[in-house]
Formats: sequence, C-alpha cells, structure tokens
Amino acid sequence: MDNVLAYLRDHRREHLDWAIDLCRIPSVSTKPEHKEDCAAAARWTRDLCERIGLNATVHETGSHPLVYAEWCQAAGAPTYLVYGHLDVQPGGDPALWDSGPFEPLVKEGRLIGRGAADNKGQVLVHLRAAAAWLACESRLPVNLKFLLEGEEEIGSPHLGPFLEQNRDLLRCDHILISDTGMYIEGWPTITYGTRGLLYKEIRISGPKQDLHSGAFGGTVANPATVLARILATLHYADGRVSIPGFYDDVVLPSPAERQQLSRLPLDKQKYLVETGSLQVCGERGFTTNERRWIRPTLDVNGICGGFTGEGASTIIPAWARAKVSMRLVPNQSSEWLSRVFDETIRARCPQTVRLEILTHGWADAYVVPVDSRPVRSAWWALQEAFGREPVLVREGGSLPILPMFRKVLEADSLLIGFAGPSCNAHGPNENIRLDDLDRGAEAVARLYAYLAG
Amino acid sequence: MDNVLAYLRDHRREHLDWAIDLCRIPSVSTKPEHKEDCAAAARWTRDLCERIGLNATVHETGSHPLVYAEWCQAAGAPTYLVYGHLDVQPGGDPALWDSGPFEPLVKEGRLIGRGAADNKGQVLVHLRAAAAWLACESRLPVNLKFLLEGEEEIGSPHLGPFLEQNRDLLRCDHILISDTGMYIEGWPTITYGTRGLLYKEIRISGPKQDLHSGAFGGTVANPATVLARILATLHYADGRVSIPGFYDDVVLPSPAERQQLSRLPLDKQKYLVETGSLQVCGERGFTTNERRWIRPTLDVNGICGGFTGEGASTIIPAWARAKVSMRLVPNQSSEWLSRVFDETIRARCPQTVRLEILTHGWADAYVVPVDSRPVRSAWWALQEAFGREPVLVREGGSLPILPMFRKVLEADSLLIGFAGPSCNAHGPNENIRLDDLDRGAEAVARLYAYLAG
Repeated sequence: MDNVLAYLRDHRREHLDWAIDLCRIPSVSTKPEHKEDCAAAARWTRDLCERIGLNATVHETGSHPLVYAEWCQAAGAPTYLVYGHLDVQPGGDPALWDSGPFEPLVKEGRLIGRGAADNKGQVLVHLRAAAAWLACESRLPVNLKFLLEGEEEIGSPHLGPFLEQNRDLLRCDHILISDTGMYIEGWPTITYGTRGLLYKEIRISGPKQDLHSGAFGGTVANPATVLARILATLHYADGRVSIPGFYDDVVLPSPAERQQLSRLPLDKQKYLVETGSLQVCGERGFTTNERRWIRPTLDVNGICGGFTGEGASTIIPAWARAKVSMRLVPNQSSEWLSRVFDETIRARCPQTVRLEILTHGWADAYVVPVDSRPVRSAWWALQEAFGREPVLVREGGSLPILPMFRKVLEADSLLIGFAGPSCNAHGPNENIRLDDLDRGAEAVARLYAYLAG
Repeated sequence: MDNVLAYLRDHRREHLDWAIDLCRIPSVSTKPEHKEDCAAAARWTRDLCERIGLNATVHETGSHPLVYAEWCQAAGAPTYLVYGHLDVQPGGDPALWDSGPFEPLVKEGRLIGRGAADNKGQVLVHLRAAAAWLACESRLPVNLKFLLEGEEEIGSPHLGPFLEQNRDLLRCDHILISDTGMYIEGWPTITYGTRGLLYKEIRISGPKQDLHSGAFGGTVANPATVLARILATLHYADGRVSIPGFYDDVVLPSPAERQQLSRLPLDKQKYLVETGSLQVCGERGFTTNERRWIRPTLDVNGICGGFTGEGASTIIPAWARAKVSMRLVPNQSSEWLSRVFDETIRARCPQTVRLEILTHGWADAYVVPVDSRPVRSAWWALQEAFGREPVLVREGGSLPILPMFRKVLEADSLLIGFAGPSCNAHGPNENIRLDDLDRGAEAVARLYAYLAG
C-alpha cells in the first residue's frame, strides 16, 4: 500500500495533466456540433486505460460512444464496476469564466473547467488509483471493470440497451460511482440514497385561439384560471401533497437515521443566502435535510399560457400548461403514482375545457443499507485519506441509473463524491479542489484494497 | 333630403375610391417606421375635408398628428363632434391576405384592406354624408366638428391632453362615433354601453435563481405554486369573483333592459364554433349576452414562470407572474377596486415569497340612456337607410375615450357601427361590406337631419 500511495504522490503533476487534457475536449453531448468531440473524449480515455494496463474498447451506441475497460485477473476476488461519464454540459457564456470553459485553468488550488467536477475529474480519480496499483504491484486487489459513457447529460438513452446486451461482460458484485458531491468542503461524503422522480405536464385547452377578454369574458372557461385552480388543489394548506394515497407507502426514517442526519450541521443563514429565499419552509415535523432527502414533494417546475409579454393584452388564453414534478422516496412506486396522478387531475378538471396529461420521466427512489461491506470499506478508506470521519448523506435529486443497475445487473451502487459544494457543476467556473482529487485518488486506492476483503 | 340621398347614390364609385386611397396609406401607429405614413394619412384626410367644404387643420400632438375639421355655420343648431381614427393595426402576414394588407381590393361586395372597417372606412361614412349635404345644400343641418386622431391603436396617449387644451374648440352637445360593429350582418346597431377595465399584474419572487428541484424541493416556497394558489382564490366555486365588495356597486339591469337584450338572437352553436369552446358557461342566472355585456368578470390573461420549453427541466422557478384583468360595469369604481384588489392579493400571499403588483390600465364602464334624442334620431335614420329596425346592444370591451369625453367635454357619445361581425378587424382580410358603407352614409346623412330637431 505504501508504494501505491507514494506513487500517487510522485505522479500528481502527471495525473493533473490527464485531467487538463481531458477537460480540454469539449465533449458536449447535448449539442450535435460536438459529436466528434464526444468521440475524441472516448478515444482519449481508451488510450489512457490501455496505457495504464487495462484492456479497453470504444463501443458505438448509436449516438455518442462509451468506453469499456477492465482488469480481471484477480482470481477469486470480487468484481467491481466503476461507472462514470465523459460527456459534459455546454460551456455557457465564456465571459462568465476565468478562462474559457474548455481551457482548463489551475488557480488557487483548484482545477477550473467544464467537466473538472462533473464528471471527468472524478472519473480520473479511479483511473489514477488503478494506474498506481498496476504500476507498483502489477496487479489490482480486486477485479475492476470501467463503464464510462458519453450520454449522461442527455439522460443516458443508450445505456439501458447496452446493459441489457452486455450482462455477462458487465457482471459484478457491486458498482462504484464518483459523480456526487461532498456535504461540506473537504468532508469526505458517502451518499446512500437518492429520491425518485415523476415528471408530468398538464395541458388545458379552451378556446381554439386567444379570445378578446372584453367580447367574451364571462361566457367561456378560462384555461389559465382552470389550471391555477387545479394546481392549487395539489397541496393541502399545511403543504402536504393531496394526491390520494401519496404518503401511503412512504417509509418513515428510523430513529437511528434521523439521529445520524440531525448530526449534520446545516447553517440556515447560509442556506437562505445560497437559495436566495426569504424563509426555509416545508413539511411540519421534519428538518430541512429530511425534507429534501427523505420526504416526498411536489413542485410546479413551470407554467405558461396566454399573454406573457410586457404590459397588457386583454385576452382569454387558448391554452395553459404546467410542468409538475414529484420527488419520491422508498417505497413509493412511480408507476402506480403516475396512474393515480392522472386520475386525480382528470377528476379535478371541469368539463368546460380539454385536458391532456404528458409524462416526461419517472424513476423510483434508491437507498442502500449503510452497514454493507462497500460502505464500511469506503468509510475507512475515506477516513484515512482525508483524515476525518466521512459523513453519510442522502441526495434530493434522482439518479435513474441506480435502479437500472440494480434491475439489470442485480448490483447495488456505492456513491463517493469528491466535488465540493461550490463546484458549480453545469455553471460557469466549474471547479474541483486539487487536494480533493489527490486525497480522492488515495482514498480510492485504499478502497480497492479494503474491498478485496 | 332626396337630393342628398341621390347625390350619395350618384357618387358611390368616387366615395369608394376615397376609402381605397386612404386604406392604401399604411398608417400603422404602433410601428416607428410608419411615422411618415401616419402623417400622410392625416394630410390626405385634411385635404379631403377641405375639398368637401370643411375647414380643416393637421395638429401635431408630439407623436402622430390628428386632423381637426369643422363646419359651424348652422347658427342656433346643436353641435356634434364626430370622433374617429386614421391609424391602423399592423398588416400581419401578407400571405394570409387575398391581396396585401395595404393593397385594398374590392371582392364579392366587400372592401378588403387594413383599416377598411377599423376605422378608415367608417370615418369616411361621415365625410361622405357631410360632402353630400354641402354639395347639394351648401350647408349642414347641424354644426359638425371632426376629431380624427392618429393614435387610437396605441391607446390615444395624446388625446387627453389635446382635449384638455382645446375644450373651447371642441365644445359640443354630443359626440358621434362609428367605430363599433353590427350585431348580425346587415343589422343596423346602436351600442349604448361598454364595460370598464382594471388590468393588473401579480409578480411573485422566491429563490434568487431557478433552483434544482431535487436538491431543494420541499424546503423553500415555490413561486409558481404560490401564484396558482392565489389565482385559485379569485373566484368562488360558482365562478363569481371573490374580491371583497366586488359586486357591491354593480347596477342590476332593469326588467326592460333584460327583456330587450333577451330579444337579441344568440345562436349558441355558432357561438361555440366562433370561440372554439366546449361549453358556454358563466355566472348563474344570466344569459350569455348579459354575462359579457352587463356583468363584471375577472380573467387571467396570461401566466408564466419557470421552465416552459418542451420536455422536462427539474427546477423550482425563481419567479412566476400572472396578468389578471377585470371587466367592470356601472357603478363599479376602477380606482376603488384597484386598491381593494391589491389589498386582497397582499392578504392572500404568504410571507415566504416577495410580492409585487403592477397596474397596467384602468377605465370605468360607460352606459348612456337609450331614450335620448341622439339615440332616437339614430334609430330612425338607421331604420330608414337599412330597411330594418336597429338593435340596441352593449359591448363587453372597453372604450376609455368615452368616460374621458364625458369628463373633459361634458358630452356623451352615440355609437353607431357599420362593421359586420366577420369584419376581422386587427386580423387578415379585414373587410367591410360596400352595401353597409353605402347605407351607412345614407343613415348618417339622415341622422344629421334628425339631430337638427
């Protein structure tokens, strides 16, 4: 182990150059004009994998390719699948960056550039650890498979089919993912659950075109009014969601979990500044972290209809629409809820208008036990590398790949993230601390050893 | 009178050319690039007025000029002010027109072109009648003043100041306006009332920017949800408006008026087709015409906030806004209601968000008695010219100039309109029937005589 850690220390500069080189490739999966860049990022990563001693291949998927790499010579040892992604969000306005989004910059101990945190920098943490083991010991303590896709930022449309078609290739005991964040800067963090999602769109149509509100006002149903009245029924006065049966299958947190979550500091003033809100609020009887991590919610994500320009236009809108999404927790079923949501909206919509309901996405919540071997291994590895106890958190967002891995590969996922809370993923000046990358690589090198058992 | 009518018949072709010439000038007041065209329309009209024997002047107003013309040599006779406007709406997509919007076309007994109905064609109906009188009799039966403005389509911003500064010049016993429509094609129509308007915008702000609905959902107020809940409180379940005191000052229709309105045919099926609505609906106990003419309403004119594109984006909106307008009837006070509306919204808005309320416009309702000399005169003149009894209607829209004339000039207005229900004012192929223009000119020539008493 000491050799491996010394190797990591001695090769920091070289490993940083890997991240700089990879972040320089604008592999923006959302934009067709970057298709060749996405392929270039895959080829670059395959070459690196080969160079450090993995067998690596670029797989075409129908759109942006993915990289599969492996080292599976640890006979009898468990097998871990490292998942990550090589594609990034668009750079946005270059003027908001210290240098261009694709001109990586090292400044004040941070690597700044699109993909530094999400997810290229964190993918390389694993490859650094593997490289150190292979260079020092000519072996890895466990069998490792790397699945590095190129379409995460567009919803991984080809990942499901690839998993289905390559179950044997991808067979593993557990999955390792570093695509989450740290709860507080420098605090090693294990994420053991995410919320699910059900995303709907309610479309109300009335008149065939916008009508003059003077000539017709008072004689026909107004779609915007109808929509507002439906949306207003979706919560009770106390803020709880009013879809029938919404809370029936919700698992209440155990006293141990509540206690553990309550030990996480939350600076209310900082939270208000960060969100720019006047007050924190939410479901009675729960803390802010509980409200965003372990309790389900319903939010209107967008609403529009009729005249939305400056000033006045006296019309009755022809239609009005709202996007409505729910964040789900165990054991809510997104499939069941989707049906009940639609029935509820239909029942609450008057006969004076036409109603259409679209479903834009769904995923169940995902939680793993915190006393598993992978979590315990990560705990020790992170503590040793960072010199402080890791924290266990849940995440309010959704990672649909986690239930998909569980379903198709029958394997659970360990989420350890090295991006700080101010990493600004998807925004300008996306960054990651060099110290977190270095300690992360050390932690992962230790983790591989712990996972061997 | 016979001479005058014969003159009108003999000069139909020439008078149609007036309308064609005037409609050819693209006097679009809403678009700065048509500023010179607006001035050209004013000069053209002044020249016509001079030619037929009126004294006419173009008055600069600070923006688009207006034309003032008069013939005031009928000593002892009453004085009438004819109001109209020379500006028009933009032509819109030329592809939707049979010929260009500013290439007037006579087709199937109609004049098609921007301004044919709103309002150039109808202004010329009055000038034709005056021309016939002056040509045949070298006099008018009454004193006539013409106030033809160039900014009606942009809300008449300079008309108020012009009235204030020219009270003596404009002094009159009554005002005549032909800028309304006919209830049914070919049915002469007198409009004796319009609804008022109060136009508000509600702006709710929450987070300083859109927030990730996963990371923050359940912990901060959602402006779109808050807005929907406020809008949903604005009507009771039965559709009546819930602003406290909203109905307190509403004048109930007299039995005579209800009876008269109920005699107007309303083809429900045609109304549904025209509006494209599934049902007619509205306040219990009132007919459709009563609901749109003599009862107040509240409509959401537009709503927006958050993500409104195709598909899904999981955000909590930073803000949400709605335009809300009320149509008012006698004796509701728009000034009083504006205050109460704001107080009501403020009281219904939670402390978790920021609230701003804008006022975009207001006007009181306007109704005149139907047994006045001008209405009786118009009745007879229209009946004789069109060969059928006129109908008396109210109008659901608002004409803020009517209360303004009443206030500044202390004169009421007579509204007789010659645009058919399918005239498509503001839309493509705006048109007016040549027969209605001809009979209109005859009716107005007769009206001038009746008004002399």
